[in-house]
Amino acid sequence: MSKNKAIVLLSGGLDSTTTLYYAKDKGYQCHALIFDYGQRHKRELKSAVVVAKSAHVPHHVIRITLPWKGSSLLDKKIEIPIRKSLKGIPSTYVPARNTIFLSFAVSYAEVIGAKTIFIGANAVDFSGYPDCRPSFYEAFQKVIKEGTKDKKIKVLTPLIDMTKAQIIALAMKLKAPLSLTWSCYLGGRKPCGICDSCKLRGKGFSQLGIRDII
Amino acid sequence: MSKNKAIVLLSGGLDSTTTLYYAKDKGYQCHALIFDYGQRHKRELKSAVVVAKSAHVPHHVIRITLPWKGSSLLDKKIEIPIRKSLKGIPSTYVPARNTIFLSFAVSYAEVIGAKTIFIGANAVDFSGYPDCRPSFYEAFQKVIKEGTKDKKIKVLTPLIDMTKAQIIALAMKLKAPLSLTWSCYLGGRKPCGICDSCKLRGKGFSQLGIRDII
Repeated sequence: MSKNKAIVLLSGGLDSTTTLYYAKDKGYQCHALIFDYGQRHKRELKSAVVVAKSAHVPHHVIRITLPWKGSSLLDKKIEIPIRKSLKGIPSTYVPARNTIFLSFAVSYAEVIGAKTIFIGANAVDFSGYPDCRPSFYEAFQKVIKEGTKDKKIKVLTPLIDMTKAQIIALAMKLKAPLSLTWSCYLGGRKPCGICDSCKLRGKGFSQLGIRDII
Repeated sequence: MSKNKAIVLLSGGLDSTTTLYYAKDKGYQCHALIFDYGQRHKRELKSAVVVAKSAHVPHHVIRITLPWKGSSLLDKKIEIPIRKSLKGIPSTYVPARNTIFLSFAVSYAEVIGAKTIFIGANAVDFSGYPDCRPSFYEAFQKVIKEGTKDKKIKVLTPLIDMTKAQIIALAMKLKAPLSLTWSCYLGGRKPCGICDSCKLRGKGFSQLGIRDII
């Protein structure tokens, strides 16, 4: 049954949660990978664990202690930017984050014999991170082919061309528990509503004409 | 002066130590990255720290706790193979190891503004790991181009086409402290002399007609 095993990268946000439910719906036997990489708050991480449990999939939390920061998502001394336009790469960019996450996913996939890795990257309603674009995933696919024993593990990005509204609509169709997810770059009890991530989420719900259910 | 900064992946073995001294000799301001990834022994790790200190370069030890093993280098329940021929991929292969290491190196490079990453990979006198071959590094270079803000970080593999004897000769020319290095897959006080890594090292020294100085 290993041909149906999949690793799903799970951050606890809207996109990765939808991706997990999408993979489950497609019949994959999912294994969630969650990363504690020194985020400025643990709210998202808690959501990831709760989502994995609600989806009844096994999960691992990988703890990574980076001796460097270089991102406002890691360094509390740098303020989270409030941007009018989403052009350019903001300070919330975490250098090589998805490369690190995928590397662990590939390692895990090889060990348990999973042939598929799902990541909820999106290059439409996104913050401009280079490691969310299709060309990055095409390049990473080549790394798997050249650098692993099991050359055939595929990285799938089912949400990459969707708008946030389309992702939310898909999540609702799949009954993904969006109320358990956390998208805000800041911690706290309620989402700030004005960071890039909150804005993108808000735009998606408002395009659908419905209220966010967080 | 950041154009001269380099990250050097340092395992404490012969190849990575030679690479560090090579990069220093070329005038790079080196920063060593050492990984504690659950190796079956800590001997190599200690060597890496001692080598970094002897080279007077700053170093970071990154601790990675993999919840899976999948390699005889990580799992003490699996015996290190003693192979007559070095054909095929042995059980010492650690899934996606160099992909994980390079991912961290790229992250570090972006944060400190280093434009070069050195790794002592070798595809001549090697154990057959796919992530030591030139095609893997070409593929990873594309990942950096597509997935980072600073697209121009280069991964250099100066030893990739050398024989072990050539590497040892280079190390001696550069006065790299080979007596401080550790290559044996097993721990202990003395190298076993019969694992793949010991055999390759031994072959190099014997081809040069000199005794190993460990």
